[in-house]
Amino acid sequence: MSDVTNEPRAGRRSGGRAARQAARLHAAAEHVPFITRTMTPVEVLSEEGLALIEENADTILERVGVDFRDAPDALKRFAEAGADVDGERVRFPRGLCREQVQATAPRDFVQHARNPANDVHIGGADTVFAPAYGSPFVRDLDQGRRYGTIEDLRNFVKLAYASPFLHHSGGTVCEPVDLPVNKRHYDMVYAHLRYSDKPFMGSVTHPQRALDTIEMARIVFGAETLETKTVILSLINANSPLVWDATMLGAAKAYAEANQAVIMTPFILAGAMSPATVAGTCAQTLAEALAGMAYVQLVRSGAPVVFGSFASSMSMQSGAPTFGTPEPALVLYTLAACARRLGVPFRSGGSLTASKVPDAQAAYESANTLQPTMLAGVNFVLHAAGWLEGGLTMGYEKFVLDADQCGMMAAFARGVDLSENGQALDAIVENGPGQHFLGSAHTLANFETAFYRSSVADNNSVEQWESEGSLDAATRASGVWKKMLAGYQPPPIDEAVDEELRDWIERQKASFPDSNV
Amino acid sequence: MSDVTNEPRAGRRSGGRAARQAARLHAAAEHVPFITRTMTPVEVLSEEGLALIEENADTILERVGVDFRDAPDALKRFAEAGADVDGERVRFPRGLCREQVQATAPRDFVQHARNPANDVHIGGADTVFAPAYGSPFVRDLDQGRRYGTIEDLRNFVKLAYASPFLHHSGGTVCEPVDLPVNKRHYDMVYAHLRYSDKPFMGSVTHPQRALDTIEMARIVFGAETLETKTVILSLINANSPLVWDATMLGAAKAYAEANQAVIMTPFILAGAMSPATVAGTCAQTLAEALAGMAYVQLVRSGAPVVFGSFASSMSMQSGAPTFGTPEPALVLYTLAACARRLGVPFRSGGSLTASKVPDAQAAYESANTLQPTMLAGVNFVLHAAGWLEGGLTMGYEKFVLDADQCGMMAAFARGVDLSENGQALDAIVENGPGQHFLGSAHTLANFETAFYRSSVADNNSVEQWESEGSLDAATRASGVWKKMLAGYQPPPIDEAVDEELRDWIERQKASFPDSNV
Repeated sequence: MSDVTNEPRAGRRSGGRAARQAARLHAAAEHVPFITRTMTPVEVLSEEGLALIEENADTILERVGVDFRDAPDALKRFAEAGADVDGERVRFPRGLCREQVQATAPRDFVQHARNPANDVHIGGADTVFAPAYGSPFVRDLDQGRRYGTIEDLRNFVKLAYASPFLHHSGGTVCEPVDLPVNKRHYDMVYAHLRYSDKPFMGSVTHPQRALDTIEMARIVFGAETLETKTVILSLINANSPLVWDATMLGAAKAYAEANQAVIMTPFILAGAMSPATVAGTCAQTLAEALAGMAYVQLVRSGAPVVFGSFASSMSMQSGAPTFGTPEPALVLYTLAACARRLGVPFRSGGSLTASKVPDAQAAYESANTLQPTMLAGVNFVLHAAGWLEGGLTMGYEKFVLDADQCGMMAAFARGVDLSENGQALDAIVENGPGQHFLGSAHTLANFETAFYRSSVADNNSVEQWESEGSLDAATRASGVWKKMLAGYQPPPIDEAVDEELRDWIERQKASFPDSNV
Repeated sequence: MSDVTNEPRAGRRSGGRAARQAARLHAAAEHVPFITRTMTPVEVLSEEGLALIEENADTILERVGVDFRDAPDALKRFAEAGADVDGERVRFPRGLCREQVQATAPRDFVQHARNPANDVHIGGADTVFAPAYGSPFVRDLDQGRRYGTIEDLRNFVKLAYASPFLHHSGGTVCEPVDLPVNKRHYDMVYAHLRYSDKPFMGSVTHPQRALDTIEMARIVFGAETLETKTVILSLINANSPLVWDATMLGAAKAYAEANQAVIMTPFILAGAMSPATVAGTCAQTLAEALAGMAYVQLVRSGAPVVFGSFASSMSMQSGAPTFGTPEPALVLYTLAACARRLGVPFRSGGSLTASKVPDAQAAYESANTLQPTMLAGVNFVLHAAGWLEGGLTMGYEKFVLDADQCGMMAAFARGVDLSENGQALDAIVENGPGQHFLGSAHTLANFETAFYRSSVADNNSVEQWESEGSLDAATRASGVWKKMLAGYQPPPIDEAVDEELRDWIERQKASFPDSNV
């Protein structure tokens, strides 16, 4: 009896949460927190070829060196480590950076999420998809292209939270241009912590903003957790060729000192910031990343660090960046192999395109980036969904289309099921020649899970498609994101923690004037 | 003096041809007759996994067998070869088909083209791209979707001839629905022989039409050439599950007896014509293809034969075929490996999509098919350009967009250039930190060839793109195919041969009444 009477009360008391928990449980059945690949990564170079790239990287580090600009801390640490420091130029004895990284950088690590079910493992055979990052503009079919706002950023945080195929909330999913530059990081980090419970990325535009991110994480995760666990992953870009600058290094230092993870990423438009060849771009990228990762290890031995590479080709007519072309794919495969040989996690790829709209160009170029991303065995994939216009624009419809592709990659990465059910030999034997399988017991048993189901592809007859308005994929995707936002339910958060976080942010914001630098 | 006076005369006499030859020479600098891959094919299964698929195929051949319907020739030959023939059902002792194929089928072969510069090597590390095949409808942006005509077929023959990235003229590029069914093969084969000089495919809709194709090839290539060389490649589809029918087998027999090549292709919508699993679909496909290829070898020992596979997944809601999904990609990788183990060339993949229009869905799905096609090491790629709507429609704009992707695949397959120029080490050393490479001697030397140049991608700024009308990729492609057709120049042909061919066709057409069966 008490069971019976209690049930409705329990339902009333925590109906919203129980419903959400049930929904999460249901989602968990489909959602995996990250992808574990079952295939050997694709190699485009032989051992000898890869060794040549590494040798060239060492030659670059030894003969040219890397500039660490306005970064006395880096110069001091490298001098102590045995490098040759000449002004801001650091030249490295062959092998020094590699040995430093291999001696202390972890091969892989867990980035903890606010919801432990969403913790991601970064490294090894695992792949984590995160949304696109850094666009000042957003675009959707209804309103076209416009500056991003904090509302847009929140929308994309919610969409990534709602998508079973995005494993990570990302960081600057778009720039909230409506907020002052020196304070927008508070609202961005808050959005990730409040509107999602997937792992997130920290601010890197000023060392203080990195410290603010860490403080906010401390409030939410607890100081003790932060000491021992990685809960923030942040993107540190080089200023290629062969320069690391003070802002980025300062942010990297702040995170590394707090044992939080950074992605040290040469961001290269080949032909402009590196030679116009694959092998040259790879050697230079490796040299830059090695120097950056070695610095992180000198700051704090054992701090989690990811080898990053962003490489695009260039229109040799206009100088514009080009994406989805064969050469960046070759760079990606090559550097993923270099990261494996080095023994650190690798970040690259995504769903990149120069197209302004989610058309056939956007899809070809994105697929031509995402396929190598998956096949090369990239561990952390920024820009997996939403990217348009060479990263200048974050697209709502593009996000939906790309997330669907991320789902396909997850299904692909599971590989071929060789169980008895997978082999289906009995089904074939029982069925016999000339008989279709539509009604066979095996087909009925596998009905639900046999094939990946796209949320945006139209596979109907042309007559059906015409009767529904002859909508193209982008138009269908427009309906999908609106439905996802309309159905969004925020993840639960401890009210006291949320209040403490919001109070802290308010105090910080009030303590210094707004500024747009 | 005679030289001087002769020059203008030579120019007058063969000005058109000389200009065309010069144009061809120029094209040859960019055009390669087929792709030679430099990378190891991607494997998704271990040796043990592949052996299991092979074992299951043998079990299917042994326990279920294959129906050869209305095909007494096949039943007789298989009985003589040691198979168990029961009515139209043929059951094979384990290994019989494999041993038959491995004993006599060539590992690879050359399909000769009317222009020897366009001969293609089918097998090994080589990949040949051919247009889509078999669509009753065509679509372009101006006129929308409509039945195909012989004019459309000629247009696509011309476009494939004009594209440096299509290596093959294909066959039924679209159905010329305006011609009688029993005579359209004359005009189709003539179109390939006259408007292109790339290799082509023969008619398979009736054994007599195969013989007609062979006779037309004899007129153009000479009877002696046909005895010793393969100049026709034809597509023979199974009637899955586990049935080969008389029409297709009759055409296959005609071609094999003339030492011309056939592609024995199980055409499978998984879930309907095979179990709804990857491993089941692979085992059944392998069994069907083995039986078909074994038959070809029994007809003529050593006749060139290609292991074909066409596999799509299925919407388990509507039963509609779906493309570009993970499962067909896994089938493709698996069966490409099976073909390598068997030691025969492999045909599969292409640029497949269920989309009705060349939108983002079409591009994602096509890229998700073409990437595995290239990475798995497919040797002959039908449907590489133009395919829409699950093969029901051949698209003009889609053709242009896909051909561009074929070009990218060719560039990718060349792999990483590790020459000194490719390594670009001196360029990096001379350049130094913080200096861009745009004006460096190395960049200027590599300006023309550094990166793949798409003919349809727009990489300009959004302002430039808007000023040019905010065109999407499909709209830009519409301009490209019109320009290609406008600039089309037919390849030269011996006038006497052309006249003989046309006379022969007229006599054949006049010798029996039109019919649409």
